[in-house]
Amino acid sequence: MRETVYVLGGGQTRFGELWGKSLSDLIREAVDSAITNTKILPTDIDMVIVGNMVGGETAEQAHLGTFASSLLPHHPPALRVEAACASGGLAVHTACAFLESGKAETILVIGAEKLTDVAGDIVTSALMHAGDSEKDLPSGLTFPSIFALTATAYMHRYGLKREDLSLVSACSHRAAVKNPYAQFRKEIPAATISKSPLVADPLRLLDCSPISDGAAAIILSMRKESPVHIAASQLANESLSLIDRESLTSFVSTRTAFQSALKEANWNRNDIDCIELHDCFSIASLLHLEDFGFAEEGQAIRLFRDGDTDASGSLPVNPSGGLKACGHPIGATGVKQILDCWKQLTSQAPNQVVNATHAMAHNLGGVGATCTVHLLESI
Amino acid sequence: MRETVYVLGGGQTRFGELWGKSLSDLIREAVDSAITNTKILPTDIDMVIVGNMVGGETAEQAHLGTFASSLLPHHPPALRVEAACASGGLAVHTACAFLESGKAETILVIGAEKLTDVAGDIVTSALMHAGDSEKDLPSGLTFPSIFALTATAYMHRYGLKREDLSLVSACSHRAAVKNPYAQFRKEIPAATISKSPLVADPLRLLDCSPISDGAAAIILSMRKESPVHIAASQLANESLSLIDRESLTSFVSTRTAFQSALKEANWNRNDIDCIELHDCFSIASLLHLEDFGFAEEGQAIRLFRDGDTDASGSLPVNPSGGLKACGHPIGATGVKQILDCWKQLTSQAPNQVVNATHAMAHNLGGVGATCTVHLLESI
Repeated sequence: MRETVYVLGGGQTRFGELWGKSLSDLIREAVDSAITNTKILPTDIDMVIVGNMVGGETAEQAHLGTFASSLLPHHPPALRVEAACASGGLAVHTACAFLESGKAETILVIGAEKLTDVAGDIVTSALMHAGDSEKDLPSGLTFPSIFALTATAYMHRYGLKREDLSLVSACSHRAAVKNPYAQFRKEIPAATISKSPLVADPLRLLDCSPISDGAAAIILSMRKESPVHIAASQLANESLSLIDRESLTSFVSTRTAFQSALKEANWNRNDIDCIELHDCFSIASLLHLEDFGFAEEGQAIRLFRDGDTDASGSLPVNPSGGLKACGHPIGATGVKQILDCWKQLTSQAPNQVVNATHAMAHNLGGVGATCTVHLLESI
Repeated sequence: MRETVYVLGGGQTRFGELWGKSLSDLIREAVDSAITNTKILPTDIDMVIVGNMVGGETAEQAHLGTFASSLLPHHPPALRVEAACASGGLAVHTACAFLESGKAETILVIGAEKLTDVAGDIVTSALMHAGDSEKDLPSGLTFPSIFALTATAYMHRYGLKREDLSLVSACSHRAAVKNPYAQFRKEIPAATISKSPLVADPLRLLDCSPISDGAAAIILSMRKESPVHIAASQLANESLSLIDRESLTSFVSTRTAFQSALKEANWNRNDIDCIELHDCFSIASLLHLEDFGFAEEGQAIRLFRDGDTDASGSLPVNPSGGLKACGHPIGATGVKQILDCWKQLTSQAPNQVVNATHAMAHNLGGVGATCTVHLLESI
């Protein structure tokens, strides 16, 4: 980072099937909560950035930057950014650029999505617009089936068993019990996950992050009014379609963003005390941990088997409950991850990692086509 | 601008009802054209920013930053931005922030929209997502009817006649005859415009910019490889809904962005040699010219009546043909405006303004809820 960007804090709605709340309601609630929690004057916000993917298709509302700016008395400059499920992380990354450019001093970053007001087939179609409309969509692929392809390739190559995959989701569900904002706050044994309904072989219902509504908001500022700052903000890409990839079991975007982030922050991998990563499907967590280099290829499952990934383990992964158990309101996820990292670094997390000073948020768009990595540090 | 951003040039597709071309085709064509025209090495592009509003709803394709990045051999970091019809200007503004932040040195900025592959009612609904889904949409308002409200208020307040409005569209159509990229290249007399079918009283068909497909791409760089640089890049907002406004005949966002831009560039209003402004409806041009201060309230029509706004006049407005005659493929418009300004400043415009060294691009989202103003200068 050319300049130091501080995370002043934020707030979020509960994630879930929030049938009584519109997209506008969710944004209002998250913004109110962020302003209340950080005690910032609304007029000190000089820019608004919203991460959202399908507001037009599922909530009849595009132009969401301006919608959110309209909630503030002085209507500061505003924009919406989108990179599918990485829209939230992208909003944070874009905010860092605006802050570093000198165009803004304090930015309200919002991630929001409302998915449950329309039928499941409409949501599934809209989310598939994250893939390549010419290469992927005509084949009938959906995101569960795309990640099922990666899972099949991984299991074939490394001999992973169906029962192993369930350990990943079980870890997230175990963590979410304590998180009041999580969609599912119930421990689910691995055996139950393995027997849940088949979605796209080998992925079962409880391998998949759910369809969720929710919003999260954070305040980023050049003002040194927080012990937490962003040590690195990286965005990396790969081909949009899986068809053009060399590997089905590794995402170049994750590798690039992570290595660039370590370099930017001048950290090494082992400095990281806790990780919020993009577990949209159970298989994804294994791919990411190997792309980060925390495990050899085909070996990441050992981290779950040995309890390393629990909040009390040696490499806490998704102590919030992750996408799997917190829910995954697309554009909200990446912003909520930063909020969860901030909570860890200010000792306010529901599953507090002891003495956490270095945290990472990893957000993915499409099947690894876009990736953001943020490293946060407390002083 | 904290740093100097150069416009290296660019390219565009023809705007129009391009039934044989998909959104992907349009983006490919604009990108190829920009790379060919500027003679840049594709691998010198270290970021891609796409302005697009309704790709998901009308072309089954979101995640367009990454789509465009996938066209380049090295898949540079990419994002999509959206602020309704100001998405293109917003993409340029966001690119300036990334360049000034030091996160990129050379950015490919693309604006693109594909509207004619779906039925008119679907396009109209999708575009209405630029308004407020809770305050505007339930009333049955569409954008023609919203701008009709401003026209009615203006005519009532200032005594403007229906026949006067037609002079605005006639000016754009006169200019577009020479522009090979324009959707309509035919001079249309004011009397014909006044008799065209009624859309939303008092606005008639030929007061309205059309539904168009198209894409434009430009290359912005910190490298001093062009005589043209961006002297100011401003983004300003106002309440999303017209309901919350004090005035129906003036947009605070335009006033704020324009005044801030003059200050940033250290220009005065009369330095400007030519303007590409957001004439989504004929009435809009009058509002903008008054918000810029080129005419007193209620007097802007005189500029059209006296021929001042022609390319050979004292205040050339939309010498390209503007949205009205070039077409208005939503996300593409703001990028194409910058390209047209660059053409003026490098003496390559179809209606060349003699000795133009200072040009302005003004792009609007919603009913003036978002506004970008860019000032370009040649040395």
